Amino acid sequence: MEDLSKPSFEVILTPALIPLYDLKGKTAIIIDILRATSSMCVAFEYGVRNIIPVSHVEDAIIHRKSGLKAAAERDGQKVDGFDFGNSPFDFMIDDLNGQSLVMTTTNGTKAIHLSSKAEKMYIGSFLNLQAVADKIITENKPVVAICSGWKDRFNLEDALFAGALASQVSHVFDLNDDSTIAAIALWNTAQSNLEAFMKNASHAQRFERLGIDRDIQFCLQQSIYPFVPEVANGMIKIDAETGNNI
Amino acid sequence: MEDLSKPSFEVILTPALIPLYDLKGKTAIIIDILRATSSMCVAFEYGVRNIIPVSHVEDAIIHRKSGLKAAAERDGQKVDGFDFGNSPFDFMIDDLNGQSLVMTTTNGTKAIHLSSKAEKMYIGSFLNLQAVADKIITENKPVVAICSGWKDRFNLEDALFAGALASQVSHVFDLNDDSTIAAIALWNTAQSNLEAFMKNASHAQRFERLGIDRDIQFCLQQSIYPFVPEVANGMIKIDAETGNNI
Repeated sequence: MEDLSKPSFEVILTPALIPLYDLKGKTAIIIDILRATSSMCVAFEYGVRNIIPVSHVEDAIIHRKSGLKAAAERDGQKVDGFDFGNSPFDFMIDDLNGQSLVMTTTNGTKAIHLSSKAEKMYIGSFLNLQAVADKIITENKPVVAICSGWKDRFNLEDALFAGALASQVSHVFDLNDDSTIAAIALWNTAQSNLEAFMKNASHAQRFERLGIDRDIQFCLQQSIYPFVPEVANGMIKIDAETGNNI
Repeated sequence: MEDLSKPSFEVILTPALIPLYDLKGKTAIIIDILRATSSMCVAFEYGVRNIIPVSHVEDAIIHRKSGLKAAAERDGQKVDGFDFGNSPFDFMIDDLNGQSLVMTTTNGTKAIHLSSKAEKMYIGSFLNLQAVADKIITENKPVVAICSGWKDRFNLEDALFAGALASQVSHVFDLNDDSTIAAIALWNTAQSNLEAFMKNASHAQRFERLGIDRDIQFCLQQSIYPFVPEVANGMIKIDAETGNNI
């Protein structure tokens, strides 16, 4: 039953559904497991100062010309002429320490821009799952988990993360939402062997063809980073006190 | 792995996602478990000759003035001045035998109209689950299971049916589609106690408030009707040979 004494937790299964939801006053968790939000977390782990998410490759080019490092991915591959694609391994380098990074990806940065009406926006991935759960429990505000999907379609890995997050906070939030119930059922089915389950995913199969199995394996690791990147004023940052920048 | 020797089976989780899919050459299964497609099946069981699905209440009024029986539901309730709402029990009457019936509902008739590019369109519900499964296995053509949802949002019961149908035909179809994998996981979680699982659904809770628990119980019965209503030329009919009109 609906429990109005608890803040609500909703899952938006693809960005195409964002306009159906009222994000005002809510905390949006942006989810793009393969690979944008996972890679953002890696970049912060490797010392990036902030990330500027842009929707269009053209915008990333302009920033790059002004001297910033820039990552651009379309259809799962690095865009020619850019410093990085969106593989998490691209960002495991010392060069990024203290730098600003511009990033545009097929799905993840789009979801960020469509969620601008949310009160707060955090970056979620399996890599910082526990940190995100702790943060939203502490803040005790209504949450919308926004799955970036694949070109507006539903994908498994983002829904799985939404289900994992919902499970972690189920004692504090009201999970009376059909999408959330479905995401939790999916997570319960998959969690004991996440990697094998993901091998079924069309998205993962597409990535396998692109030769990025190790990206998938990396991105499914849980709670290895203790920080929660926040999107504010067109910029993604981590709180220096809770982050572990090197 | 994708198996190109088998026809594809895809699930569209809400009508808002229909434009992202190419329906050409595919068989669409229209799903609105609570309650449009369930009630359509009941109407055929009780002898309705054909159903004319219309998107707008105004169109239903025009048909009704020309002498047809008409059913209209909005927000889960019968529209004033109409013969029927969309409770399955509304259609369990002898009066309908041999009659045409006009029907407009919040979600189901909308999904029908958005799916017009499909090669064929069938009406699916738990009530005729096995008949739908048998039909698409025999025809061996690509299938898209279209969940009507609730006002363009995802709902559990339609996704559950899509998962049930996918499970029934898994030996014949290629189920390499993220939405289908998720629907099957949901079905596997819920099938042993479908009614209890549905009690969790916001949609079912809303209906409970409207006093239609027995509708839900009725609509979750599996494979009690042997026919598959087909939408063609703006009209829904069953094949007199396979149907069991009384």
